[in-house]
Amino acid sequence: MSEIPEDHPRYDSLITRERIVEGVRIGITSPQGLVAQGRGESFDYLLGECTSESASCAEKVAVAMLLLARRPVISVNGNTAALVPDGLVALSEVTGASLEVNLFHRSETRVGKIIDHLRSHGATDVLGGKGDARIDVNHDRAVVDGAGIYAADVVLVPLEDGDRCQALVHMGKSVIAIDLNPLSRTSRTASVTIVDNVTRAIDNMVELALDMDCTDKDVLRESIVSFDNEDVLSSALELIRERLLYISGGIV
Amino acid sequence: MSEIPEDHPRYDSLITRERIVEGVRIGITSPQGLVAQGRGESFDYLLGECTSESASCAEKVAVAMLLLARRPVISVNGNTAALVPDGLVALSEVTGASLEVNLFHRSETRVGKIIDHLRSHGATDVLGGKGDARIDVNHDRAVVDGAGIYAADVVLVPLEDGDRCQALVHMGKSVIAIDLNPLSRTSRTASVTIVDNVTRAIDNMVELALDMDCTDKDVLRESIVSFDNEDVLSSALELIRERLLYISGGIV
Repeated sequence: MSEIPEDHPRYDSLITRERIVEGVRIGITSPQGLVAQGRGESFDYLLGECTSESASCAEKVAVAMLLLARRPVISVNGNTAALVPDGLVALSEVTGASLEVNLFHRSETRVGKIIDHLRSHGATDVLGGKGDARIDVNHDRAVVDGAGIYAADVVLVPLEDGDRCQALVHMGKSVIAIDLNPLSRTSRTASVTIVDNVTRAIDNMVELALDMDCTDKDVLRESIVSFDNEDVLSSALELIRERLLYISGGIV
Repeated sequence: MSEIPEDHPRYDSLITRERIVEGVRIGITSPQGLVAQGRGESFDYLLGECTSESASCAEKVAVAMLLLARRPVISVNGNTAALVPDGLVALSEVTGASLEVNLFHRSETRVGKIIDHLRSHGATDVLGGKGDARIDVNHDRAVVDGAGIYAADVVLVPLEDGDRCQALVHMGKSVIAIDLNPLSRTSRTASVTIVDNVTRAIDNMVELALDMDCTDKDVLRESIVSFDNEDVLSSALELIRERLLYISGGIV
């Protein structure tokens, strides 16, 4: 990776970009994943590159859902594997959720490489290699593990494509999406949408899970009941509109 | 390149993405260029993926400036070379502007490849290979041709980085930028900012140049005099704010 001085004003953003370029180099991220990364960067910039209050609230609800779930699964693609491997492994450990590799541009080689990558970051058991079940979408993301996403009750889908999100919801699953675009089909379809950068969101969720009392299920359930995903999306959009005014220095 | 059916609702956007991925494959576009492409995609989506009235006006003024210039130059990087090689060659021909390769991640190999790529699309003379002069920025984009960008009075810089744009303006040049982010330093520094997708902008400019009467310099000058770049940026920002309301279906 290129050397970036830690005091660079855009250190976090540049390091993130380097990680994803490195992901392509080692064969776990697809070139198209770089384009997706860029799309996210724009929305993050418009959102102020920090976790908003409403995103933080969605993260808390998401963690409660994972902790209460019977069979929670964290879906991992080439971008998340490159960006936050340690965070994914930690979140899996603290919530008890399984990790499952699921790719839009699927190849057995790439699935294997991502599994190895997660293992080298401490994961013990990673699903996705079997691909013995299908969900109802017409591309490679249809291929899932029967004991994983197919049977899950709660699925965390960071950096998702819209039709898979929709298919999972139609199967009756609770879907938690992490998506910087509050207008995307994924954002509007998911049960809980975390409008935040995946690099911040996963770290936040690990901390929240460590802080929560997993034994008091009633308290966890209570935090979910009052949640309204429409409110989260509205807040994010309002934030972007405000930021446009702010960044432009009032030239609008 | 992957096969994409022409009736696909997102055909233009997908073809553009394929072209840029292909650019990386053949070594004319940098992987970081893919991230930049993604950033542009988000803003294009927010702008409605069409040329706005104010962008069209900026394109007209830009063409008039190129036609009136003594030494106009079109700066070409790895993304524009991959996306619009035919358009760049045509624009160079109809306006009399030179093409010059100028790269952020510069290597002699890549400069050579881009020159060959433009030649294979009909360009006869492409500058940028000499690199015998410097402008005041602290990265590779400092390296320019003495007979090209260094001596130019008007420079068209599609997909630019902010500090080079600023340096060129400080040298007293008129700079025309094509940038989908109306808030970027480039957009706010350039003499004329075309807030439009480079794939549409270059084609529009070729048509405008063919329609304009190059012999009547007074008419060309007149079209420039009344132009206000702040108005163009304000219009683009207002458009994004309106689009956010529209796409969200009023959930803001």
